[in-house]
Amino acid sequence: MRFDIITVLPGLLESPFAHSILQRAQKKGLTEIHVHNLRDYSTQKQKSVDDYQYGGGSGMVMTIEPFAACIEKLKAEREYDEIIFMSPDGETLNQGIANQMSGLKNMMILCGHYKGIDQRIRDLFVTREISVGDYVLSGGELPAAILVDALVRLIPGVLSDETSALSDSFQDGLLDAPVYTRPADWKGHKVPDILLSGNTPEIEKWRFEQAIERTRQRRPDLLDEE
Amino acid sequence: MRFDIITVLPGLLESPFAHSILQRAQKKGLTEIHVHNLRDYSTQKQKSVDDYQYGGGSGMVMTIEPFAACIEKLKAEREYDEIIFMSPDGETLNQGIANQMSGLKNMMILCGHYKGIDQRIRDLFVTREISVGDYVLSGGELPAAILVDALVRLIPGVLSDETSALSDSFQDGLLDAPVYTRPADWKGHKVPDILLSGNTPEIEKWRFEQAIERTRQRRPDLLDEE
Repeated sequence: MRFDIITVLPGLLESPFAHSILQRAQKKGLTEIHVHNLRDYSTQKQKSVDDYQYGGGSGMVMTIEPFAACIEKLKAEREYDEIIFMSPDGETLNQGIANQMSGLKNMMILCGHYKGIDQRIRDLFVTREISVGDYVLSGGELPAAILVDALVRLIPGVLSDETSALSDSFQDGLLDAPVYTRPADWKGHKVPDILLSGNTPEIEKWRFEQAIERTRQRRPDLLDEE
Repeated sequence: MRFDIITVLPGLLESPFAHSILQRAQKKGLTEIHVHNLRDYSTQKQKSVDDYQYGGGSGMVMTIEPFAACIEKLKAEREYDEIIFMSPDGETLNQGIANQMSGLKNMMILCGHYKGIDQRIRDLFVTREISVGDYVLSGGELPAAILVDALVRLIPGVLSDETSALSDSFQDGLLDAPVYTRPADWKGHKVPDILLSGNTPEIEKWRFEQAIERTRQRRPDLLDEE
């Protein structure tokens, strides 16, 4: 899976893509992540990529030309399954969307900043708008990193143990059961006896009950969807 | 507002906190962001911070001791309003929660990794569990960066123009109206005439109608909540 991310702040994305699973997936050749500096596509003297908004109001708006130039260059090089704009206005990302998108091959991701991007970029180029949640952030860079992380970890071979992704929260419509590790007794706070019993069928039953109970308490909406 | 973030991957958070609004807010003295390396609190020879989970199953679980040592050291230095664990099991972050939390003074944020953290850390130390959305990620680091970004931009003085935060999507329960900037005509794709009219009351009316219409089309659930 290849990602081309267009941003005015390429440096912001350096460390998230250079660590942990995203780093390993790139080293293994399972994903390519290319970050493009929008300013390189500005034809303005000062490399500006934004301007005042028409109709007045606070906040700068990102202009069409640099995005159009970068998108058109990339589209001339390969076909893209989706050109995604990260925006709180978009479809809300969830695990089902992540599962579905993890099968795509080439994805372009546009990051907005400031007050937003010229609507014509969205109308003319963007194929899908994705929101990571109902909150406002400084820009689309962290949401882009979230989307890449959510998708890359689903690519077969990325996680060392594939069952690890399948047993995550949401994959079965339930939150995870609580997990415990050593020591069995920490200052009097003990691990539940059942987990030390070695009785695998009973442990599985306990975990399922705990997952149901936790989901009922915290996210009854997930149970209603079934 | 002070953030103390505890993570096994401090390097992952370097670039998000060194750019844009988060960098400026720190330089202005409006926020302090301290990232603590969990491994520094491990008493194991190999500085390990995880172990196999009790009861069997794939994935490593983060142990109590290093978290407890780091949390207790920080709590001895100052009082914390919240000790937050980033988890897909938690309350789903939204703009209302962000507004409410942006008034806090000291916040500790724990980032999980691998299969999760020992449940006793959650039971004994954590005061609030926050999810950034219904999807699974490699760890709590990007969610922690999202939370910090969402809160810091609400601190008075952080954004150069305070009305910019107030007019964002969600602050009035509506998505934003489309925005446009120069050129007025890009390859035949024109800015709506109303925005070039100079008639401010009519422009405001148009924006409100567009916001309502976009919210109705994309997120009717936001209108139902009123």
